[in-house]
Amino acid sequence: MVTVSEAWQHILEVLPDFGSETVALEDACGRVLRQTVTAERDQPPFDRVMMDGIAIRHTGARRFRLQATQQAGDAPITLSSDEHCIEIMTGAVLPPGTDTVVPVERIAVADGHAELEADYEPERGQFVHRRGSDHPEGALLLAPGSLIGGPEAAVLASQGLARVAVGRHPAVAVVSTGNELVGPERALQPQEIRASNGPAMLAVLRHNGFAGCRDIHLRDEPAAMRNQLGGLLEEHRVLILSGGVSKGKADYVPGILSELGVEVVFHGVSQRPGKPMWFGVRDDRLVFALPGNPVSTLVCFRRYVVPALFGAAGLAPATPETAILSAEYRFRPSLTCFLPAHVRTDDGGRLMAAPSPTNTSGDFTTLAGTSGFVELDRERENFPAGTPVPFYRWQAG
Amino acid sequence: MVTVSEAWQHILEVLPDFGSETVALEDACGRVLRQTVTAERDQPPFDRVMMDGIAIRHTGARRFRLQATQQAGDAPITLSSDEHCIEIMTGAVLPPGTDTVVPVERIAVADGHAELEADYEPERGQFVHRRGSDHPEGALLLAPGSLIGGPEAAVLASQGLARVAVGRHPAVAVVSTGNELVGPERALQPQEIRASNGPAMLAVLRHNGFAGCRDIHLRDEPAAMRNQLGGLLEEHRVLILSGGVSKGKADYVPGILSELGVEVVFHGVSQRPGKPMWFGVRDDRLVFALPGNPVSTLVCFRRYVVPALFGAAGLAPATPETAILSAEYRFRPSLTCFLPAHVRTDDGGRLMAAPSPTNTSGDFTTLAGTSGFVELDRERENFPAGTPVPFYRWQAG
Repeated sequence: MVTVSEAWQHILEVLPDFGSETVALEDACGRVLRQTVTAERDQPPFDRVMMDGIAIRHTGARRFRLQATQQAGDAPITLSSDEHCIEIMTGAVLPPGTDTVVPVERIAVADGHAELEADYEPERGQFVHRRGSDHPEGALLLAPGSLIGGPEAAVLASQGLARVAVGRHPAVAVVSTGNELVGPERALQPQEIRASNGPAMLAVLRHNGFAGCRDIHLRDEPAAMRNQLGGLLEEHRVLILSGGVSKGKADYVPGILSELGVEVVFHGVSQRPGKPMWFGVRDDRLVFALPGNPVSTLVCFRRYVVPALFGAAGLAPATPETAILSAEYRFRPSLTCFLPAHVRTDDGGRLMAAPSPTNTSGDFTTLAGTSGFVELDRERENFPAGTPVPFYRWQAG
Repeated sequence: MVTVSEAWQHILEVLPDFGSETVALEDACGRVLRQTVTAERDQPPFDRVMMDGIAIRHTGARRFRLQATQQAGDAPITLSSDEHCIEIMTGAVLPPGTDTVVPVERIAVADGHAELEADYEPERGQFVHRRGSDHPEGALLLAPGSLIGGPEAAVLASQGLARVAVGRHPAVAVVSTGNELVGPERALQPQEIRASNGPAMLAVLRHNGFAGCRDIHLRDEPAAMRNQLGGLLEEHRVLILSGGVSKGKADYVPGILSELGVEVVFHGVSQRPGKPMWFGVRDDRLVFALPGNPVSTLVCFRRYVVPALFGAAGLAPATPETAILSAEYRFRPSLTCFLPAHVRTDDGGRLMAAPSPTNTSGDFTTLAGTSGFVELDRERENFPAGTPVPFYRWQAG
């Protein structure tokens, strides 16, 4: 049995690189950037007008003949003389020969002339955003390894990129085992329950941009299971199983995976829920076999699987958030405890975590509405209110 | 001009209900639940075995003849007599006639019999998860108005729901105006810049499950713009414009929208960036016209538009997070200041916000990698390090 941090280290040690693929910018949010983006030109690319108004040459004069109008996007118009001004709009190129912008609120226009407001003294160079003052051509704008959100999408678009290299999201098979599991297609027998782990993991994966995923149910029949898992291993880079990994008589999963050439990296983690978790690799394929209890599955999926998938897609590692327990919690076993919690920041900006324990690891309905879970150290039994603890949101990234 | 909180109140006052639509569960993550989900039966639905081992009738006997094996999902087998036991697996129905589970680790099996470990005293009823002890049939499991994540998807699946009612995400048109804007399809003239607001908002909307969105560019030509906006208003429930809303000569947007029958709700918000923001409605259609500066656009989009869209889709209102400024900031104008920031929780669980000011509101490349922005009150000028302030993540929800 390994500890939680050992388990994560073992996963990192064997983590493959999924490589990159190119997607349309409109599909890039939530994906991991895999390319370096440098500035295609100076920013601003020209001396840029920052206000609507007139552009003048600053000589001390206060009245100017309107020479022309130059909007944003217009080719620049050269000033004829110091007695002229050019009407300009925000975003326009500063007209050659001018050096100063006077806002429209500070002028009166009449008779083909603009006159400065009485007592208004423009400063030379005002309201001009100088070429290259934000960054020069070639400057590093985005480095690989970051998650693409709104601001990053804006930067990508601003550099003329219609498509972008992001971490590949390979085909993932989500596999639930257990004869008691039934999908939504028929009514339940009393001894049966609905399959929920597979559908939940599939929905989370799809929301995280893993489009090519499947949710498969296998019965606890070793020969058939061996065939089916063998086929799934050929077709998918990642298998995420739930159920069948304990030491029970019907827990065929670890044995079958070994027979299929999947090398076990660890089996058993000193944690609750999720103690029987199994993880192995075959070449560059990853197999996560999670305990079938829904709380165990969801916790292990969030704590290990999702970060591993994003790590293999190229996301730079992040440290977990730290939250503060808002109520005491005691946990006797010498195991790391993953405790569901509601979090919110208090008026003082402290991230407070209110424990929301499940009565059994099979009762996952109380997880609905929780924000995630805190991780309580296995070396301790008492966690008083006020203890800072690592916190994982259900929705990663 | 309205204040930030008045602007948001005005939006809420006219916010329509987008209604609901039904999607496959696998596509439900990140969407707003619009149905009530109650338990289809007791949970657990039967007295459920919690360990692999044997089920016995607790009489004090220590040796039992193995009668049968009953796995999870098998129809229950009735115990023949107190001298018998039934081999059972986690998740199985407690066999009729038995009342106690003895874990496999506590028995020795030989000769068709199971014998309890010396000194091991099982408690009557142990390792049985009682029918209905988590919740009874009909119990409320999920209420409308919550965002669907992994735990909620698991609950939905557990109730046999293959499809789920979620808030409708209507067609949204993202419209950028400005003659200086050019898409990625051709090289730039010196006075031109790449369109970035439209593509960025489109990418964020798609990531948030707004599939039927378009990104359209309009030139600053009033007649054509009027025609095009008129058509877009017919086809879309929501228009999000960027650019053309200031008081400049080429800022045709407010006038054209009025001509098209869009009733202005507010024009101008006492905020920076984003002061010229315009918002109006026509029947149940929403029109957000945001200033074209990329920082203004992104901030207004996150602060007003995204919460409005999710609100109209049925999401219960949430209070913003509170973060603590990690460095002093001064802001002289009597405007609410939206200040980009990097946040992380410190070792004490405090959400610390490090200001990352942009040098101009046109410089948005420094937004990349920030977490979101803090909102600094317009009534104050000095915000010392340690001040708690509302914080908005770029990625909402």
